[in-house]
Amino acid sequence: MNLRELASQLGLTYEGDGTWVIQSPASLEKATLEQISFIENERYYPVLKTTQAGVVIAKPDVSVPRGNVIRTPTPRLIFAQVLNLFYRARLPKPGIHPTAVLGEGVRLGERVYLGAHVVLGENTILGDDVVIFPNTTVYNHVNIGARTVIHSNCSINDYTQIGQDCFIQQGVAIGGEGFGFVPTPEGTWYKMPQTGWVVLEDGVEIGCNSTVDRAALGETRIGQGTKLDNLVQISHGCTIGPHCVVASGTGIGGGTTLEGHVTVGAQVGIREHVTIGRGVTMAARTGIHSNVAAGSTIAGHPEVPFKVWAKYSAAFKYLPEIQKNVRALKKNLAVLETRINKE
Amino acid sequence: MNLRELASQLGLTYEGDGTWVIQSPASLEKATLEQISFIENERYYPVLKTTQAGVVIAKPDVSVPRGNVIRTPTPRLIFAQVLNLFYRARLPKPGIHPTAVLGEGVRLGERVYLGAHVVLGENTILGDDVVIFPNTTVYNHVNIGARTVIHSNCSINDYTQIGQDCFIQQGVAIGGEGFGFVPTPEGTWYKMPQTGWVVLEDGVEIGCNSTVDRAALGETRIGQGTKLDNLVQISHGCTIGPHCVVASGTGIGGGTTLEGHVTVGAQVGIREHVTIGRGVTMAARTGIHSNVAAGSTIAGHPEVPFKVWAKYSAAFKYLPEIQKNVRALKKNLAVLETRINKE
Amino acid sequence: MNLRELASQLGLTYEGDGTWVIQSPASLEKATLEQISFIENERYYPVLKTTQAGVVIAKPDVSVPRGNVIRTPTPRLIFAQVLNLFYRARLPKPGIHPTAVLGEGVRLGERVYLGAHVVLGENTILGDDVVIFPNTTVYNHVNIGARTVIHSNCSINDYTQIGQDCFIQQGVAIGGEGFGFVPTPEGTWYKMPQTGWVVLEDGVEIGCNSTVDRAALGETRIGQGTKLDNLVQISHGCTIGPHCVVASGTGIGGGTTLEGHVTVGAQVGIREHVTIGRGVTMAARTGIHSNVAAGSTIAGHPEVPFKVWAKYSAAFKYLPEIQKNVRALKKNLAVLETRINKE
Repeated sequence: MNLRELASQLGLTYEGDGTWVIQSPASLEKATLEQISFIENERYYPVLKTTQAGVVIAKPDVSVPRGNVIRTPTPRLIFAQVLNLFYRARLPKPGIHPTAVLGEGVRLGERVYLGAHVVLGENTILGDDVVIFPNTTVYNHVNIGARTVIHSNCSINDYTQIGQDCFIQQGVAIGGEGFGFVPTPEGTWYKMPQTGWVVLEDGVEIGCNSTVDRAALGETRIGQGTKLDNLVQISHGCTIGPHCVVASGTGIGGGTTLEGHVTVGAQVGIREHVTIGRGVTMAARTGIHSNVAAGSTIAGHPEVPFKVWAKYSAAFKYLPEIQKNVRALKKNLAVLETRINKE
Repeated sequence: MNLRELASQLGLTYEGDGTWVIQSPASLEKATLEQISFIENERYYPVLKTTQAGVVIAKPDVSVPRGNVIRTPTPRLIFAQVLNLFYRARLPKPGIHPTAVLGEGVRLGERVYLGAHVVLGENTILGDDVVIFPNTTVYNHVNIGARTVIHSNCSINDYTQIGQDCFIQQGVAIGGEGFGFVPTPEGTWYKMPQTGWVVLEDGVEIGCNSTVDRAALGETRIGQGTKLDNLVQISHGCTIGPHCVVASGTGIGGGTTLEGHVTVGAQVGIREHVTIGRGVTMAARTGIHSNVAAGSTIAGHPEVPFKVWAKYSAAFKYLPEIQKNVRALKKNLAVLETRINKE
Repeated sequence: MNLRELASQLGLTYEGDGTWVIQSPASLEKATLEQISFIENERYYPVLKTTQAGVVIAKPDVSVPRGNVIRTPTPRLIFAQVLNLFYRARLPKPGIHPTAVLGEGVRLGERVYLGAHVVLGENTILGDDVVIFPNTTVYNHVNIGARTVIHSNCSINDYTQIGQDCFIQQGVAIGGEGFGFVPTPEGTWYKMPQTGWVVLEDGVEIGCNSTVDRAALGETRIGQGTKLDNLVQISHGCTIGPHCVVASGTGIGGGTTLEGHVTVGAQVGIREHVTIGRGVTMAARTGIHSNVAAGSTIAGHPEVPFKVWAKYSAAFKYLPEIQKNVRALKKNLAVLETRINKE
């Protein structure tokens, strides 16, 4: 593909030699003359001086070494589209492996792929073009929407509802029983049965070895287009709104609501039964104890506005010095008071 | 079932219309006239004004809208029992799937269920009514007690001893080698062989994708009735006492002891080789560096009494202001001292 | 084996009765007269007074109760070797289970073991003496070096390159798509395709249910002899150098480099796109926001030198008291100033 053809496919303008041949995408540091890359963050502008990339996707005001450039206000987003053009998803062809086990009442859409040793429970229903990789277990009464991909060694429990175009990575466990135990007068724990289910709306993605529990009553819901990273925990009865992103190692307590368009950094903890407003951003490691107002940017444990936390994090290492100074001040002030009282 | 019959089954008294028909349990917010719910926490008393629940389980002093009420000092516990009455555990019927693979010397109790592609290693022994869901692997020389349930895609390594009435959720890994490496003079790491095993006593529950490692020597033990949430790490050689609860994302270091009836919040970290006394409660995110006395309630990193941490967490955001004030105080005091010295 | 024979096998000197028979290794606390143990950390010297161990491995200057001793400056390391002598790894004999599924173009070395329901994708290549336990899935175009062991229920995605003598524990997910999403002008998230792969160099070990993601472009690399504990997250595009150890619950952000010989405590978080110098040590729970110079020992969130954090962690609980004192100081100083101004 040459520069003119690629720009045309993307619906964008280009500058430079339209006949320049592009063989694949690459990072700015490693690209060769036959490759296309992109520049967006100003932090990486110095790399433009040394890059060997033949073509660069860049913002209107940025000049590139060879003059071959595709113009857009969102170079990173366009580069993602270019990657999709060159590397189509490496999905297997339709077909049911003979070792797959299908329960009674299973219904399959057109062009479904089931890998070796996949197990589908009773009355489970798969839409068209669903892909399930080997050694994944789907329990009974599960619905899986069209074009959804479930990678290998996942486990999807009873009554889970999965939308269209979802992407579930390796080792994910959905629909486990929520952690609900009632203390008894004898000091032991009595299980609160978890009779609910999990709903994933369309376009949800879940990273490797993450866990989404079913509710005690009713549903745990993950909203349209929301993306979870690896090793994330969503507890029973959560309502995660649409178009959130949740980074790795984060845990969200039972019955908590994220209203939508919430950005959650890595290793965040959110307590149970709170509401996080629309558009909130949380720094990595934030520990949430209360409701958070829509649009806030927060950090710390317990949470405070990000600007406050930034000041704290610059100051915390001086705490021992401050403590020492306060002791000295008390002493010196007392000395002074004594002197003045004597005079 | 009507109100009179249900109260009788629970061995409790009721008030109101004993012929009121109850079709299912539900939360107070969503219940309809044909449903039963409960009220325990005073925080939710306002919901009583609007609930449509036909019957409510409540403490002796609480009045409910329709007057149909089951009386108990522990409404939440009784509601859990009601849930169990209505929704019997959704367990499969006994039977060995033809794709299950059984090693030499395997012995099975009565009425065992083995799902598709379950693998049992050599000399593994299962008690009566054991249930193992599909794609789970059990290694050699494992004992599993009566009525224990192991969900799908779990992995149970050699010599693990699992008691009766345990409940192991999806994706759990038990008996992996503990993280033991000895530094060599060359700056590399030599593996300390992990020759031990894991013991789960009766009634233990383990949440999805959690991990329990076997010891270098001897055992890692989880006590009777202890419940672990999802994504919990129990390191080699731990002794977790009876009737503990450990919330999601917590990690417990090697050789550490929890004496029993310990409550561990989410994302807690406990260092290796410490002892946590009986009945300790830890807030979420506590980071334990030392032994903890029985009965304490603690928080923070490193840990302090919860009351101290609560004061700290109210104050920490003022640290930059305090730092500024201390600087100003030093300056002002110095000015004052100079003035007085001159006079 | 007797003491003389064992010392000879280890190439070390002994003192005491060379004919003393040793049946197995054990901890100092639990060893009997027929067992061998070791003492290294001075903290455990008091146990020497009561131990029943027949033979002890100890440093040159340490005297042991029965006088039967093997001398070395590194007793822990030698004990690990003794354990290896007594408990050979419990690995299965070579053989391909009839339920294993091999894709087209698979090539197997000599003496390979494939457990029940193992799946190998197309064009995957295994070296000699590779061991793969049941229910593990290996995708297409994967290379696995000689003597590598992969435990059960793991999932190894396309194009992963695994070296020789690696050890992958139960439930590990390698090669999942990195968490790369580009915000669109509409407030949704567009997937950045993850077209790269994962490389594990020789001697890498990975703990249960850990996750290593593949890069958007190019590789995620884990260096020779590096050991990861359970539930560790390595994000897309990381370069982890040789001979690092990473404890449980730690997450490392995308594109970050650990230069080698780095020791990472439990539940650490390292942000994306930073470089950690050679030989750095991080305490448990460290939260890294910036590059870290080689050889540092650090702790805290954000990170500070360990010594600074130790002082902070002793002082933090006094913050409310300091705040109170500062308020009082301001007031008292103002009173004093007023008095002096009046005089």
